[in-house]
Amino acid sequence: MTDLTRFSLNQETIKQWSLPELAEGCVKAGVPGVGLWRAPVQEYGVERAARLVRHAGLAVTSLCRGGFLTALDRAARAAALADNRRAVDEAATVGTDTLVLVSGGLPPGSRDLPGARERIADALAELGPYAASAGVRLAIEPLHPMYAADRCVVSTLAQALDLAERFPAEQVGVVIDTYHLWWDDTIAESVTRAGDGGRIAAFQLADWITPLPAGVLLGRGQLGDGSIDLRWFRERVDAAGWTGPVEVEIFNEGLWERDGAEVLAEVTARYVQHVL
Amino acid sequence: MTDLTRFSLNQETIKQWSLPELAEGCVKAGVPGVGLWRAPVQEYGVERAARLVRHAGLAVTSLCRGGFLTALDRAARAAALADNRRAVDEAATVGTDTLVLVSGGLPPGSRDLPGARERIADALAELGPYAASAGVRLAIEPLHPMYAADRCVVSTLAQALDLAERFPAEQVGVVIDTYHLWWDDTIAESVTRAGDGGRIAAFQLADWITPLPAGVLLGRGQLGDGSIDLRWFRERVDAAGWTGPVEVEIFNEGLWERDGAEVLAEVTARYVQHVL
Repeated sequence: MTDLTRFSLNQETIKQWSLPELAEGCVKAGVPGVGLWRAPVQEYGVERAARLVRHAGLAVTSLCRGGFLTALDRAARAAALADNRRAVDEAATVGTDTLVLVSGGLPPGSRDLPGARERIADALAELGPYAASAGVRLAIEPLHPMYAADRCVVSTLAQALDLAERFPAEQVGVVIDTYHLWWDDTIAESVTRAGDGGRIAAFQLADWITPLPAGVLLGRGQLGDGSIDLRWFRERVDAAGWTGPVEVEIFNEGLWERDGAEVLAEVTARYVQHVL
Repeated sequence: MTDLTRFSLNQETIKQWSLPELAEGCVKAGVPGVGLWRAPVQEYGVERAARLVRHAGLAVTSLCRGGFLTALDRAARAAALADNRRAVDEAATVGTDTLVLVSGGLPPGSRDLPGARERIADALAELGPYAASAGVRLAIEPLHPMYAADRCVVSTLAQALDLAERFPAEQVGVVIDTYHLWWDDTIAESVTRAGDGGRIAAFQLADWITPLPAGVLLGRGQLGDGSIDLRWFRERVDAAGWTGPVEVEIFNEGLWERDGAEVLAEVTARYVQHVL
């Protein structure tokens, strides 16, 4: 038996599917949850997307993504905060309690990592209460250090926790994504720390394969194809007290060129083989 | 005045130069030191290369590289150890006390990072005394986490120090390379720790630019073109007690297509502007 009780499919994994195809495909495959992205949800209509997944009986395990909170320019900063409030509203509308944040990289011309990190903390102080009052938690996602310049100056789970712990646990949590964190020799301790503090907001899976493609965005591996001990991670996150969804989020152009149902069948089989 | 007293040019930065061109170009530009690579040195002849740089009055600040110590297979492991002993001999012959080690990635099919790291420690235990008796120190280079699978399972300076500190400081040190370490929010403490323990064996510079090219090997940036606060690094490494060479090691296909002397003039100008 394939136990998919905790399985969630992040929609970017099968980006070729429209939202209705996603809902239908997941129901057919016995997948109980989905992670959604703002752009396709906005395009389809936020309320309409909410109805679609609700009628399909799917849980929405996360919404990706808010963030990009490192701008120096005052107008850009205000626009980012406003956009993040909209993201919180959208998360609440689609029925998830988890808004994933990609914090942002260095502003053009800047080399000031500590400054960028402090601006993220300032933004969390503004956004946290707003999110909590909407029943949504901000989930800081540490991204692999190869994205530190252009996407996310938060590169390790320990660093994400240092940030999150400055705020109440119901306002700010962290995302544990194997693709970003697998290389870190201190990851076991950080996972335990995240669990002890009630900070785990999402657990996401992708495998690490090489060589990396140009731009390093679309080279994530199908579960089991790469270097990550995914079962070790799942057991460790479970041991830290996480009983929530296990969301598969793979950005891979090869998967996007294939039939969606076939990809989903492969993903769930790999999940059983390499994760459960 | 351009103070190049501590400046060293790693030969891969101007890979288009032969060894005689490198020696002549450095002397002309007032560059006092070079970092050498094994393959071009072997091709030219190790003794002959040693004479060439000695007659040119150049210091050899490091030899790249030994390492690749993570093999599981017994024969492959013995071959790696033998090759590293040859690398030590070559370092001694060309007149440097620093052999840079790129530790190695995961063996094919393996997902066991802790195991790979222990095999590196086992190899250092065998190689350290041999190196020290030749007047050469093994310098563990932590590589950016994007190389953890295929090149180096040692990803942070703290991790390199955890490894190095299991051995006498005269046998095993660490390399601080800005390109690999700039993103780490704990780097300042690790640099201090490295200095306090007398573990800094080499200090190398390259800048971080995006987007990364496919394979992520040849995308290092010219000093000042990227996101790294190079002067902050140099000051921090100096404050930790390092008075040795500052070696510029940039792998960039754009630089390799240009006139070598022009590239060297640009590198030294950038060094003065962004590092000194």
